[in-house]
Amino acid sequence: MNQNITFLIHCQDQPGIIARVSGYFYDLGFNILSCQQFTDTEQDAYFMRVSLEGTQLPLSRAELEARFVEVATELSLSWSVHYHDDIPKVAVLVTKASHCLFDLLERHSEGKLACEIPLVIGNHPTLEYVAEQFGVPFHCIPVDPNQRAHELEVERLLAEHQIDLVVLARYMRILSPEFIARYPQRIINIHHAILPAFKGANPYRRAYERGVKLIGATAHYATDDLDEGPIIEQDVQRVTHRSMPPQLARLGEDVERKVLSTAVNLHLEHRVMVHGLRTIVFPES
Amino acid sequence: MNQNITFLIHCQDQPGIIARVSGYFYDLGFNILSCQQFTDTEQDAYFMRVSLEGTQLPLSRAELEARFVEVATELSLSWSVHYHDDIPKVAVLVTKASHCLFDLLERHSEGKLACEIPLVIGNHPTLEYVAEQFGVPFHCIPVDPNQRAHELEVERLLAEHQIDLVVLARYMRILSPEFIARYPQRIINIHHAILPAFKGANPYRRAYERGVKLIGATAHYATDDLDEGPIIEQDVQRVTHRSMPPQLARLGEDVERKVLSTAVNLHLEHRVMVHGLRTIVFPES
Amino acid sequence: MNQNITFLIHCQDQPGIIARVSGYFYDLGFNILSCQQFTDTEQDAYFMRVSLEGTQLPLSRAELEARFVEVATELSLSWSVHYHDDIPKVAVLVTKASHCLFDLLERHSEGKLACEIPLVIGNHPTLEYVAEQFGVPFHCIPVDPNQRAHELEVERLLAEHQIDLVVLARYMRILSPEFIARYPQRIINIHHAILPAFKGANPYRRAYERGVKLIGATAHYATDDLDEGPIIEQDVQRVTHRSMPPQLARLGEDVERKVLSTAVNLHLEHRVMVHGLRTIVFPES
Amino acid sequence: MNQNITFLIHCQDQPGIIARVSGYFYDLGFNILSCQQFTDTEQDAYFMRVSLEGTQLPLSRAELEARFVEVATELSLSWSVHYHDDIPKVAVLVTKASHCLFDLLERHSEGKLACEIPLVIGNHPTLEYVAEQFGVPFHCIPVDPNQRAHELEVERLLAEHQIDLVVLARYMRILSPEFIARYPQRIINIHHAILPAFKGANPYRRAYERGVKLIGATAHYATDDLDEGPIIEQDVQRVTHRSMPPQLARLGEDVERKVLSTAVNLHLEHRVMVHGLRTIVFPES
Repeated sequence: MNQNITFLIHCQDQPGIIARVSGYFYDLGFNILSCQQFTDTEQDAYFMRVSLEGTQLPLSRAELEARFVEVATELSLSWSVHYHDDIPKVAVLVTKASHCLFDLLERHSEGKLACEIPLVIGNHPTLEYVAEQFGVPFHCIPVDPNQRAHELEVERLLAEHQIDLVVLARYMRILSPEFIARYPQRIINIHHAILPAFKGANPYRRAYERGVKLIGATAHYATDDLDEGPIIEQDVQRVTHRSMPPQLARLGEDVERKVLSTAVNLHLEHRVMVHGLRTIVFPES
Repeated sequence: MNQNITFLIHCQDQPGIIARVSGYFYDLGFNILSCQQFTDTEQDAYFMRVSLEGTQLPLSRAELEARFVEVATELSLSWSVHYHDDIPKVAVLVTKASHCLFDLLERHSEGKLACEIPLVIGNHPTLEYVAEQFGVPFHCIPVDPNQRAHELEVERLLAEHQIDLVVLARYMRILSPEFIARYPQRIINIHHAILPAFKGANPYRRAYERGVKLIGATAHYATDDLDEGPIIEQDVQRVTHRSMPPQLARLGEDVERKVLSTAVNLHLEHRVMVHGLRTIVFPES
Repeated sequence: MNQNITFLIHCQDQPGIIARVSGYFYDLGFNILSCQQFTDTEQDAYFMRVSLEGTQLPLSRAELEARFVEVATELSLSWSVHYHDDIPKVAVLVTKASHCLFDLLERHSEGKLACEIPLVIGNHPTLEYVAEQFGVPFHCIPVDPNQRAHELEVERLLAEHQIDLVVLARYMRILSPEFIARYPQRIINIHHAILPAFKGANPYRRAYERGVKLIGATAHYATDDLDEGPIIEQDVQRVTHRSMPPQLARLGEDVERKVLSTAVNLHLEHRVMVHGLRTIVFPES
Repeated sequence: MNQNITFLIHCQDQPGIIARVSGYFYDLGFNILSCQQFTDTEQDAYFMRVSLEGTQLPLSRAELEARFVEVATELSLSWSVHYHDDIPKVAVLVTKASHCLFDLLERHSEGKLACEIPLVIGNHPTLEYVAEQFGVPFHCIPVDPNQRAHELEVERLLAEHQIDLVVLARYMRILSPEFIARYPQRIINIHHAILPAFKGANPYRRAYERGVKLIGATAHYATDDLDEGPIIEQDVQRVTHRSMPPQLARLGEDVERKVLSTAVNLHLEHRVMVHGLRTIVFPES
């Protein structure tokens, strides 16, 4: 192996986990770059993210994983391992709003998103020019009265490109449970409100009507319940009575694109663990 | 008159309002300290706040107001006038949480709240020591199974002290429509969530369960609908998965006290106008 | 005239300015969209921004301005007038960092910057691809040991394109007083620090060495003194000990691009007045 | 032992530290509550904070420390150990500004600062009423033309009360190197600016004159160089041209008290390690 490796580990809280896990990796000859833990005392649940410097080791991936099963069995761990040489493939799904797509493609072109973006899928042709501008293939799959037919076409494209993560960048279409089940915790949606406030349609208009002094955005994993998935990142923008709904929408765009790209980055760097409705997000270290 | 004066004016949008109103005050010999306007283009509604330097003018309050009626009639204004010599009287209602009460009394004792605080009313004796510490009389009116009996006792105290503004500083008790009708737009409540999210009880626990990445607080005028009144001020605090409900509550306290005292100040300086569910908040100038 | 109009007015503080100015525009038949004022009590200086709805008026620009001279003379005003039909022309000057250029061109292509961008000038060819991607002509004028020779080439291009505003989007080159004198208060620079901290070179490295907990960015008008011009906008990003200089630089990019585009927008909407080292920034209304 | 324990560890970066240290504590029977690390790759320096659940162990403090010396020698660690039963004693030094003192005493009285505050020392009698209000002894030691005489009086009081941490809560007096040397990394100062900007006197006036759009505060350990010590915490407040110096001072007070109490808390919870001019601040976990 000649790459860095990240382990995400989850188990019931119990003494000795750090010592056992860090000792295990040390004995194998790994240098531990970082080891972050979290105990949810409300739920007696333990979470760990370990990053290893994996260069020039005579161990194969299969051997590493096979041996780790011993530790995992001993401590009743659920776990996943991520090799930094495996560059994830991301598909961006859009409708007509360009700001999030622009932002993701710009960051990708500047080398700030650790992924490939082999395609953009739109249910309208509106944003083809944005994808083209960045040299990314754009596929228009128009909305179909038969929603599953539309989705199956999308799924076919995702499968063909071996997509690891689906980013809904203001994709204005509710996905079916069937679709979502195909990509568990691998679909990130941006909602233009501070969830759980203003779930559903037209959040900026409702924010105006309610007279809020803060608007915001929420990036979350998509689940069957609309806007109810585990939250990865949120942020806000202060507003005043002066902003009518169109101004709120415009002000919100900067927050949306920042929150979405932050969430995508956290996912791509294997910093997010989902536990029920909650996420554990290990910060950069 | 030997004092400053603030007019709050509201009418349907129409040309010529600034020229007419500012000309009127200028002709009377006033110096205009600030003149702020806002047009809600969604609702065709116009709002204005005018601050006048009112020193050494030979005009009585009655004369000033009588003459302004002419302008008001001509432009179909609804309006109010506020003389800075009239120091508002504020009652603070509390239960057991001390942070907001401490903060209000501290700011008051430092001369940062333009009001008198002739009394604190608690439905528990817990916070008597805080009021005593600042030399403010504390009245304990225990919760009564007959809510109106309790409220009538509170109302009697408020009337006796000629209270202009009631501040619910984490007062854990729903007030009846009868009580609220006695103090229209003169009761400010602090809710420990970013309304309209987490209305009602236990917002910090529900924020934990929902896994939000931001907590916050909202100061609003109390209305019949719980946590549905016009919002004056909101702010947030970034949190992580690490905070269990008690830590969220503790982190939130700083936001609560900041938001509440900001809202009280804005009200006391006649910077807030209510329009339906929304507030127009004219910033300091 | 069939357009909106903004007047920026400055004078010594004196009674009656609002009444006189708003009355004047009202008498000419204008609807006043907004009228913002500010009195700097430390310097006895008065500032006003008036926006007029200028549609369907039988008055020419020349007539309007000629008549306003009367008011200006009477009140000793210094003033400028801006017609919203006159779309300003903006040149972006860059070196190698792409994030600010990407952001400005993206916002421009989304219709969020009220200007034309007829050209990008680089002193390196590095960012030609960004300009090309957005269909904006790119001119490379390499650095020259003779700085004025380089600048004269730049000035020639700016003159040829009748540029109204020069944006230094991480342009790593100090401009001569001669150049700056050609564009007084019409050159906006972004500095990657919270001025006046970390003036000059390598602010992120120095921020790391000083161990600050906040980094930020400052957009200001360029003057002869490096990083000493009037500040238009600033913002910050919280950081920890974990960020080494390259991470600080990356974290700072989002703040830089937000601050720069905000400042450019404020300038283009005629919301900024300069008074010595300070700016008066009238918010959107 | 029947208490929790925190170890702070610093050494040159090297493989195996986590495994060795966590294994050591595990073997002794401790449950590791949290284990945070940081590697400064610029300086090849490693930092660790380990929190142990220390209840019901048959080990004495002396034994624990004696045994840890073995590990420390092996890995060339510099280290300190902190027993949560040892409640630190804090002295607050003030002049005339009350907001930080109020805030610290209020938080202390609410149980939010893990310390005792046996005394407040003022060089003016102004704030005696604040200390009295919270039942804390106040000592007035007037400024003396002979600064060391004044300081020796302060030192005597600090020694008498076995003070662990000195908090300069807007103490307007430069301390001598002799005084500071007595309390290395145990004096926390609040400066009312975003250091390194506006070091020294009158930062709010200078902020006004420079026309900044953000003001802020910095809490740092006091060193011989005024306002040059390692920064623990900083925060900002957005301002506009509207704030004259007195308003800036008032707006800044909220930031100052928040930043100071945050820094004091971080210190009291043994979350701060100093490395040259920089601090490593391990967040709550």
